[in-house]
Amino acid sequence: MRFGVVARRDKEAALKLAYRVYDFLKVSGYEVIVDEETHQHFPHFREGDVLPLEDFDVDFIIVIGGDGTILRVEHRTKKEIPILGINMGTLGFLTEVEPHEAFFAISKLIEGEYYIDERIKLRTYLKGENRVPDALNEVAVLTGVPGKIIHLKYYVDGGLADEIRSDGLIVSTPTGSTGYAMSAGGPFVDPRLEAVVIAPLAPIALSSRPIIVPAFSTIDIRNLSLTREIILAVDGQFYTYLSPDTEITVKLSPRKARFVRFTNDVYPKYTLRLKNRF
Amino acid sequence: MRFGVVARRDKEAALKLAYRVYDFLKVSGYEVIVDEETHQHFPHFREGDVLPLEDFDVDFIIVIGGDGTILRVEHRTKKEIPILGINMGTLGFLTEVEPHEAFFAISKLIEGEYYIDERIKLRTYLKGENRVPDALNEVAVLTGVPGKIIHLKYYVDGGLADEIRSDGLIVSTPTGSTGYAMSAGGPFVDPRLEAVVIAPLAPIALSSRPIIVPAFSTIDIRNLSLTREIILAVDGQFYTYLSPDTEITVKLSPRKARFVRFTNDVYPKYTLRLKNRF
Amino acid sequence: MRFGVVARRDKEAALKLAYRVYDFLKVSGYEVIVDEETHQHFPHFREGDVLPLEDFDVDFIIVIGGDGTILRVEHRTKKEIPILGINMGTLGFLTEVEPHEAFFAISKLIEGEYYIDERIKLRTYLKGENRVPDALNEVAVLTGVPGKIIHLKYYVDGGLADEIRSDGLIVSTPTGSTGYAMSAGGPFVDPRLEAVVIAPLAPIALSSRPIIVPAFSTIDIRNLSLTREIILAVDGQFYTYLSPDTEITVKLSPRKARFVRFTNDVYPKYTLRLKNRF
Amino acid sequence: MRFGVVARRDKEAALKLAYRVYDFLKVSGYEVIVDEETHQHFPHFREGDVLPLEDFDVDFIIVIGGDGTILRVEHRTKKEIPILGINMGTLGFLTEVEPHEAFFAISKLIEGEYYIDERIKLRTYLKGENRVPDALNEVAVLTGVPGKIIHLKYYVDGGLADEIRSDGLIVSTPTGSTGYAMSAGGPFVDPRLEAVVIAPLAPIALSSRPIIVPAFSTIDIRNLSLTREIILAVDGQFYTYLSPDTEITVKLSPRKARFVRFTNDVYPKYTLRLKNRF
Repeated sequence: MRFGVVARRDKEAALKLAYRVYDFLKVSGYEVIVDEETHQHFPHFREGDVLPLEDFDVDFIIVIGGDGTILRVEHRTKKEIPILGINMGTLGFLTEVEPHEAFFAISKLIEGEYYIDERIKLRTYLKGENRVPDALNEVAVLTGVPGKIIHLKYYVDGGLADEIRSDGLIVSTPTGSTGYAMSAGGPFVDPRLEAVVIAPLAPIALSSRPIIVPAFSTIDIRNLSLTREIILAVDGQFYTYLSPDTEITVKLSPRKARFVRFTNDVYPKYTLRLKNRF
Repeated sequence: MRFGVVARRDKEAALKLAYRVYDFLKVSGYEVIVDEETHQHFPHFREGDVLPLEDFDVDFIIVIGGDGTILRVEHRTKKEIPILGINMGTLGFLTEVEPHEAFFAISKLIEGEYYIDERIKLRTYLKGENRVPDALNEVAVLTGVPGKIIHLKYYVDGGLADEIRSDGLIVSTPTGSTGYAMSAGGPFVDPRLEAVVIAPLAPIALSSRPIIVPAFSTIDIRNLSLTREIILAVDGQFYTYLSPDTEITVKLSPRKARFVRFTNDVYPKYTLRLKNRF
Repeated sequence: MRFGVVARRDKEAALKLAYRVYDFLKVSGYEVIVDEETHQHFPHFREGDVLPLEDFDVDFIIVIGGDGTILRVEHRTKKEIPILGINMGTLGFLTEVEPHEAFFAISKLIEGEYYIDERIKLRTYLKGENRVPDALNEVAVLTGVPGKIIHLKYYVDGGLADEIRSDGLIVSTPTGSTGYAMSAGGPFVDPRLEAVVIAPLAPIALSSRPIIVPAFSTIDIRNLSLTREIILAVDGQFYTYLSPDTEITVKLSPRKARFVRFTNDVYPKYTLRLKNRF
Repeated sequence: MRFGVVARRDKEAALKLAYRVYDFLKVSGYEVIVDEETHQHFPHFREGDVLPLEDFDVDFIIVIGGDGTILRVEHRTKKEIPILGINMGTLGFLTEVEPHEAFFAISKLIEGEYYIDERIKLRTYLKGENRVPDALNEVAVLTGVPGKIIHLKYYVDGGLADEIRSDGLIVSTPTGSTGYAMSAGGPFVDPRLEAVVIAPLAPIALSSRPIIVPAFSTIDIRNLSLTREIILAVDGQFYTYLSPDTEITVKLSPRKARFVRFTNDVYPKYTLRLKNRF
């Protein structure tokens, strides 16, 4: 079994725990590689074990950090490698265990006592081409000028679904339904459901509601504010300015994210975490 | 081809149009039966053609009325007979054509130029037994005393999803997502999606949000307000008071509702109707 | 100084604390009267000190319980007697101190180290006559049949404000803004503001929003569902069925509620309590 | 009586109507001045009558355009000059009459048959200094990077009201309550009420609700995201980037906006316009 180790870069405790995990796995005789950026912030790993995320080709990646760190791993790795998330963040919708459970969890992983939780991702096409990372949480089409609304139309499988004047439009997976889409008024979506939330962000029209569509839908977004630049934000991590006339299409990605879980419960696991967001 | 005809009972124009449709179909040589209650309110049909909805065994039912009339037909017929809805109601999410298109639509139906739009329904079990109609829109568990909240827990596939203090809890199909569930803050759900909306009605806790779960989920609702009667309302049509300790389970029904459509577009057909609700 | 003592009737600890407060005040030489119902549930008070709430004529009432107990006192006493609330409830928006602070708080009260927080109340007129208690929280006009909407128009100072199809309409004081009105989507209203929240309960039309009007406004509510009984609920305590054609008018009451406070802070006191409602 | 005339610059019909109004008033013997920018876009006015908005010192300003044009006049004039708004915009919450009523309205104005509707404005202090226009609608504190939340605390009269992670925070007058604040979930506020809406924009915490405070409140906003620039947007017209540590204070302005009205009804005038926003 080969492991990758990645830590949140701005938290000493996460970096130290990453080192302990690395050391434990090495001592136990496993092959372990470490993310280049983790090494840059905590340069104690053996040079020969350090690789950029793009080159990771392991059986499992152990990520010590919050949802942001997991999203970074998802955006940059090339293969669908299962992730075990150890929570050193604030909310931790994606992480599975707390730091004090780390070694117990890794032991269970080694013994094969785990589930794989597959999550859908969304792929974005700009004028027909995919040149941005897949979204595990959401694709947000936002006004380029905060406070100045954009005027959008969006289509589901070719049919006009709504025309909105708003700060933006959020297209979210079930995984992302507890994130930006919920701030925009969307519901929690059970991760077992192959569905997508489309939620307008602060729309002017009170009749513009979040909608839930099948994950196999093709979602086309057109900007009618032709003098206003728009921003595309993927998972709150990847940003790009688009010219106003860019045709945006969002579809189910052929790739999935894979997470190591020790229970396959959805309830109350995720709904409970909602309560802790205050 | 055999037809059934049903009209809204409280609207003269609907009853008259029903008679014209009946007459047209008879003259064209088809076998036609008429709903007993329609006949009671407009006693011009041939006695031999009159039957209660429960005994309808035809190829298509032509319903002239609003969503309420269609729900009545759905609750009372025993077979999954496709319905063509001619709108004589206010909103008409379920109806397909306007009165002036009635005969044109019937011609297309006869010529076979139509789609069948299948919609899921929800079945309710009270202490394990099903003795209420299937819901095409929603099952609502409501406080028996308006203004006095009930205290509920609900479980999805055995896991606790939320504990709420509210006026009630609504469990809705995609078809019902534009109805009571939306008034409670739920999203529009694409009818192609096999999903269920669970929406608390005016909950005290701001963190109690609507959730969307797979249609195959088992939803168990338990009332913790043991001194307070609760009401079960199916599609806003069927009502029953329940003793406080009744165990309520909602599941996908084996039956589907079937509607005659002349386009299989979802968008902008249903999202547009939302705009007209004001 | 003369004191009244009232406890929540269904909680042993509240009744016992009430007795200790009563005893402490008697021993300290004050005149103390006890609510009849409190005595019925904990019959240890001196008979001569027991009176119904309607006859209380004291300088302060010490209420041990939750918001429900305070509302009961407000509805039944005839004078504007300042209330010191000791929290033995769940939320406690109206209570001022926790049980362990009770005697310290009473000492400060005796020493005159307190503020009086005056809160507006709403008076309801049915066909022009006031025969229901004033509301400290809210007046709710509700469907008499849970799940069956009512069709209302409401007017502010004679002008039509909205026409709604909903489960009801809530007219709330700032004090009640954290209660039923907030469950219906209303905002928090600073208690210093002489304003009233009018919030439709689960309205069909998405454009029907809560509105905030001056407290001096005359709010007229008319039921257009002439075959459907409606319920009037005051503060979730007082209920009455009304005939469908009852003309309902809600106005500022000439009476105020008065609470003993030890700080005159609004923030973060009340906004923080919102966070604890989960 | 001296008049000012201002038109929307991007609409031929508005500029032409402005000229006809100007001509009518001149012919009727009144002194009339015209806004410099209006003249630039329609250079037919007499040069001697043209002045920048900043120098307008007239009895009434007749504005032909939408809410945006009125906001421009409000931001740039130095005196509290009553405005008569003739609607050539989309929504027109601030305008009073439609173009076909323009001359009839002006006649009534000349005859003295009108009301003055005074509206409160908000003044913003950055590190204690006021160097931005007063807001007739709202002051919005927004993330400088769309899609990246900011972390704010805000205080009302010195007490912490809430700590939020959101796209921003909107502080709105009753006039602005139908604008950006409503898109963020705020209620309609009766313009007669001296109150301010504070509404978080797409907050992460579900417990962060809009709040309504007295207009005399001092609202202090502090940005805790010290590495993130923020944007201050006044009335969607005036924008400025602020350094992350800028202390922002919003208070009632000593200035009011004054509008010419021909009825002093609030209802259904403004609530009805909400219905037309779809």
